[in-house]
Amino acid sequence: MGIICDKFMFTNKTGQELYKAYAEPLPIIDYHCHLSPKMIAEDARFSDACDLFLSGDHYKWRQMRTFGIDERFITGDGEAYEKWKLFADCMPFLIGNPLYHWTALELKRYFDIDVPLCPKTAFITWQTINECLAKEDFSTRNLIRKSNVEILCTTDDPADDLTYHQKLAKENFETAVLPSFRPDKAVHIDLPAFSGYMEANGIDSFAKLKSWLGERIQFFHQVGCRVADHGLTYVPYAEGHAEAVFDKKMAGAKIEAEEADVFKTSILQTCAKEYAKHGWTMQLHIGALRNNNSRMYETLGPDTGFDSIHDWPIAEKLSKFLDALDVQKALPKTILYTLNPKDNYVLGTMLGNFQEGPVRGKIQFGSGWWFNDNRDGMEQQMKALANLGMLGTFIGMLTDSRSFVSFARHEYFRRILCNMLGAWVEQGEYPDDSEMLKRLVTGICYDNAKNYFSFAGKAHS
Amino acid sequence: MGIICDKFMFTNKTGQELYKAYAEPLPIIDYHCHLSPKMIAEDARFSDACDLFLSGDHYKWRQMRTFGIDERFITGDGEAYEKWKLFADCMPFLIGNPLYHWTALELKRYFDIDVPLCPKTAFITWQTINECLAKEDFSTRNLIRKSNVEILCTTDDPADDLTYHQKLAKENFETAVLPSFRPDKAVHIDLPAFSGYMEANGIDSFAKLKSWLGERIQFFHQVGCRVADHGLTYVPYAEGHAEAVFDKKMAGAKIEAEEADVFKTSILQTCAKEYAKHGWTMQLHIGALRNNNSRMYETLGPDTGFDSIHDWPIAEKLSKFLDALDVQKALPKTILYTLNPKDNYVLGTMLGNFQEGPVRGKIQFGSGWWFNDNRDGMEQQMKALANLGMLGTFIGMLTDSRSFVSFARHEYFRRILCNMLGAWVEQGEYPDDSEMLKRLVTGICYDNAKNYFSFAGKAHS
Amino acid sequence: MGIICDKFMFTNKTGQELYKAYAEPLPIIDYHCHLSPKMIAEDARFSDACDLFLSGDHYKWRQMRTFGIDERFITGDGEAYEKWKLFADCMPFLIGNPLYHWTALELKRYFDIDVPLCPKTAFITWQTINECLAKEDFSTRNLIRKSNVEILCTTDDPADDLTYHQKLAKENFETAVLPSFRPDKAVHIDLPAFSGYMEANGIDSFAKLKSWLGERIQFFHQVGCRVADHGLTYVPYAEGHAEAVFDKKMAGAKIEAEEADVFKTSILQTCAKEYAKHGWTMQLHIGALRNNNSRMYETLGPDTGFDSIHDWPIAEKLSKFLDALDVQKALPKTILYTLNPKDNYVLGTMLGNFQEGPVRGKIQFGSGWWFNDNRDGMEQQMKALANLGMLGTFIGMLTDSRSFVSFARHEYFRRILCNMLGAWVEQGEYPDDSEMLKRLVTGICYDNAKNYFSFAGKAHS
Repeated sequence: MGIICDKFMFTNKTGQELYKAYAEPLPIIDYHCHLSPKMIAEDARFSDACDLFLSGDHYKWRQMRTFGIDERFITGDGEAYEKWKLFADCMPFLIGNPLYHWTALELKRYFDIDVPLCPKTAFITWQTINECLAKEDFSTRNLIRKSNVEILCTTDDPADDLTYHQKLAKENFETAVLPSFRPDKAVHIDLPAFSGYMEANGIDSFAKLKSWLGERIQFFHQVGCRVADHGLTYVPYAEGHAEAVFDKKMAGAKIEAEEADVFKTSILQTCAKEYAKHGWTMQLHIGALRNNNSRMYETLGPDTGFDSIHDWPIAEKLSKFLDALDVQKALPKTILYTLNPKDNYVLGTMLGNFQEGPVRGKIQFGSGWWFNDNRDGMEQQMKALANLGMLGTFIGMLTDSRSFVSFARHEYFRRILCNMLGAWVEQGEYPDDSEMLKRLVTGICYDNAKNYFSFAGKAHS
Repeated sequence: MGIICDKFMFTNKTGQELYKAYAEPLPIIDYHCHLSPKMIAEDARFSDACDLFLSGDHYKWRQMRTFGIDERFITGDGEAYEKWKLFADCMPFLIGNPLYHWTALELKRYFDIDVPLCPKTAFITWQTINECLAKEDFSTRNLIRKSNVEILCTTDDPADDLTYHQKLAKENFETAVLPSFRPDKAVHIDLPAFSGYMEANGIDSFAKLKSWLGERIQFFHQVGCRVADHGLTYVPYAEGHAEAVFDKKMAGAKIEAEEADVFKTSILQTCAKEYAKHGWTMQLHIGALRNNNSRMYETLGPDTGFDSIHDWPIAEKLSKFLDALDVQKALPKTILYTLNPKDNYVLGTMLGNFQEGPVRGKIQFGSGWWFNDNRDGMEQQMKALANLGMLGTFIGMLTDSRSFVSFARHEYFRRILCNMLGAWVEQGEYPDDSEMLKRLVTGICYDNAKNYFSFAGKAHS
Repeated sequence: MGIICDKFMFTNKTGQELYKAYAEPLPIIDYHCHLSPKMIAEDARFSDACDLFLSGDHYKWRQMRTFGIDERFITGDGEAYEKWKLFADCMPFLIGNPLYHWTALELKRYFDIDVPLCPKTAFITWQTINECLAKEDFSTRNLIRKSNVEILCTTDDPADDLTYHQKLAKENFETAVLPSFRPDKAVHIDLPAFSGYMEANGIDSFAKLKSWLGERIQFFHQVGCRVADHGLTYVPYAEGHAEAVFDKKMAGAKIEAEEADVFKTSILQTCAKEYAKHGWTMQLHIGALRNNNSRMYETLGPDTGFDSIHDWPIAEKLSKFLDALDVQKALPKTILYTLNPKDNYVLGTMLGNFQEGPVRGKIQFGSGWWFNDNRDGMEQQMKALANLGMLGTFIGMLTDSRSFVSFARHEYFRRILCNMLGAWVEQGEYPDDSEMLKRLVTGICYDNAKNYFSFAGKAHS
């Protein structure tokens, strides 16, 4: 028998009851994910289990490589069932890994499969999943419907025309599918793609870049965007002449690290001010060390499972960056994520420096991100937040995922949250007051996010 | 009903029994706090719950800001009950925060209030507390008496005339109220206040500064001081010409970071040698990133809730700093505190490099400080110490507080300590030997501190 | 009564059963230790408890210093029983320290002593142990035999003639005693001993150094070596002219830190390529800050208990170092160890960047090292590995010890491992599937190491 039952992830009864009574029925606000709006708009279908579960999931590719599997059966032209079979071979060795829990949840919730995925069940699960996927009931939109998603925010380049978001809005799809503004390509002047991106968008001056970003923010806003997102090794803060750095880069010269920081500081501050003006929320994803494996980067490109955790100090520059906005009264609502759990206490205390009414929890500590998206990571993030800040104002979970079945991670999070709250009650650290506990659970799982973001339209109806 | 009962903070029976039998009855040695000696000397009273609980407590201000409360009702001229009411509104959202536990303990221990502070109980608690505070029984000295405090060490500037300490000593107040020597203003040459401080104390040369510090240490010693304290982002170690840096600064020039480190190294080493000579203990508080919010700093000044955790590497310079004293046989008893829990293992192992008889536990790892003054922080500090050093020689808890009811945190600490020891016994990691367990508990809660410090007079009678 | 019983270290029944059924009977592969091959070859004996337990153990020396004991009774000429007595005095204060657990295990497993070591039992344990040690049954080889050790790898300088390993191989000692290649003295150009080491081995040019290392690797290989080891503050990565740095050093000039990194990068890469060619495994031990106490270093030299944990960022250079080998298809099997637990998540994700079949778990995250060799450290390392990588491919425990009774730490590790797995099963995070659990336990405790390393001969018979 599989592991998914009422007790899954629970060590205490109070938590289990909190989950059942208050958390489970709530809709999902997935305010940051990487789903393809095109696939939703076209209501795409999946050809087989491999297509749905393995084709875009670098978390799984890493583990398959660790198991010693040939790349042909990971990202290569290996036969689909063979890939599924090899993935099933890995599973029992992934004890303690979130992939083990996620896969069990996904098989149970979407395909009613109770057996654990393992070599013995590779074929039967393959058949069952494929039979399901053959039905319209398992199209992207139907998977989203089954998942009770009220709002989801995709991740989009400023240059995107947002056709699919507009199409979905017109069609009145029950779930609000909103864009997020992720201008990484316009920020990372130290990456090779920068100049090409500028040219492709007709940007030939620093002033033009800033006005272009302003226009795109305006356009995204019209299409319902209320969230921006930045991926950063660390949040930079360097004063200097950003325009000169831009010109130097566009003239083909090499940019020094300090110069890149001057440019990034300026562009990020420009964007942040726009976000504040529009009532948006700024997400800062800090601490990834990307594309570590040059050989595989040549073959497969980015986001293929060769990223890891950076470990530079981040506190001082982040503080100055946020302060520089705050002194101009231009600090937007902000969510700080870290990939390195050593920073949990740094971020958990940084929040408090810039909180300001009337927004409740204006600066948020983002839920355990990527490599921290597991029981330990979530508990550490939430305990840091509880110890240092106010857990009751936390806006909770997001999937950050490319997969249409990973909404199940909201269930995972909610179970872990309720278990933690239940443990505190049972240890006598908080009263067994069901009214207040309900408010905490529904707040963190749904209400807080709903109140925090400024989503318009359907979501607020 | 409230959460404060015999079981509060306990997950095991052995720990609960250890607490009741050995820890609870012990007096308190609060060897580092920020209480006002003037208020004790004058046996000051509190006008209302807001005055006692909120008026000086930036921990609470941060949380009220997070909740979205207007600054007028935090540090402004808002009406006192309104502030109390808004604080009560926050409380239930602070699940998992030490403020939740501390407040419950303080209400119970000093005001016999059993209900949790929350919107519904805001008015009744306000009334009950204010009725108590109207009685002489709740003066500063009586609060200290109720708390069974044997010794408390305030935090004092070298320029302080220590009038109040001397007055209290003459009056034979039952609790020894001793000064600590905190010469931060004479060390932080990179802060704007430095030159003014030098002038105010008639110091116009580096030699004069050193002799002045020596004289003040001598004077503090006569008034019973046996502990010094330094607040540092990191412990500096840089060789160079400190006198030249001093002269440059006094001439009004800008000091570079490296120059500041040269000066600080020299002054700190000078002080440390004096401490060693006088049998004092040197406290080093490492890792705060202060005054992050310029706008609020302009309005409210320092220590108003806008500090957070720094994250630079600290090991190498700290090692050199301590070693430079040790080679001269001038390393005083030292307590190392870190604000960043990433440093727990660094400090826990740094201790062992410089331990030396006949002092037991000469170099101490200070109890979970500030943002770590909570269950997780204390457990992590004590587990790091246990794993890496000798927990049985630990000198235990201090409040580091500005509040006259926060002695209750010693109870909090003792419960957490006993729970941890009890868990080890119940897991079979340590024998259930009551004689030895008693010795460990009384040692960490009282005896070790009593033996470690060189307090004279009443404390040793 | 002592603490060693079936339940020792267990919080759950499933784990206890896993240990008893699968882990306990397995032989030991101790793939990294510091035992003296000479003592094994000569089947040395121990004069008394002090000789066996205290004479070479700086873990204990640190704790005795912390307790305030005079150095004469630690490393000095104090009388042996007096040292043992003073060590016994310390023990009860070491609650929560692995020394407490290890000592209890060692007394029970090798000497059948059930009482805890403490002041009251100092004499009886002294007598019992000494009576045992007087018998041939307690020679080094017999202690190894009692410990069920199949393979052990010592730590050896490239210049070593490996006489004792060859002698043991000829004599057909049941345990394979294999050398490891540890060329630290040829790598650390920034340490004073470098030039003398070069001269002693007749090396007068960079080319000569490289060819000499290649020859020594070849020779070690013939004697059965399949593992290399490097101790590094951080893994360097700097490009430049290594030969020029070597020449400058040999000419007596001072080498800058950056130059040292250029040299180290080059030599380490040279070695690593040889390891890859020979099918060896490269161990990188990262993060020690050594010889912090100059005064004691003068008296006692290195490895005497004055080392602690470094805290520099390590991710970026480590990534470049591994990548530079990988692009040349010359990255050997590698084990990454960190002394600073802040790096657990950095290393746990770094692995995944360079995993590649057909080796299963080609890049390993080494078991909790030195200051992390305790319950918390092991659990944190294994949980990081489980969350981020594939725990089921972990090659498990090694002692890294100088003591002939510390094989008991394999039991310690196995209990902690089984307890962790059992807890996951009981919390419903993994199926209670005894076949798979057996495979995980035997894998991590024995099979994975056996399959991972390329040990020849007896071990594979």
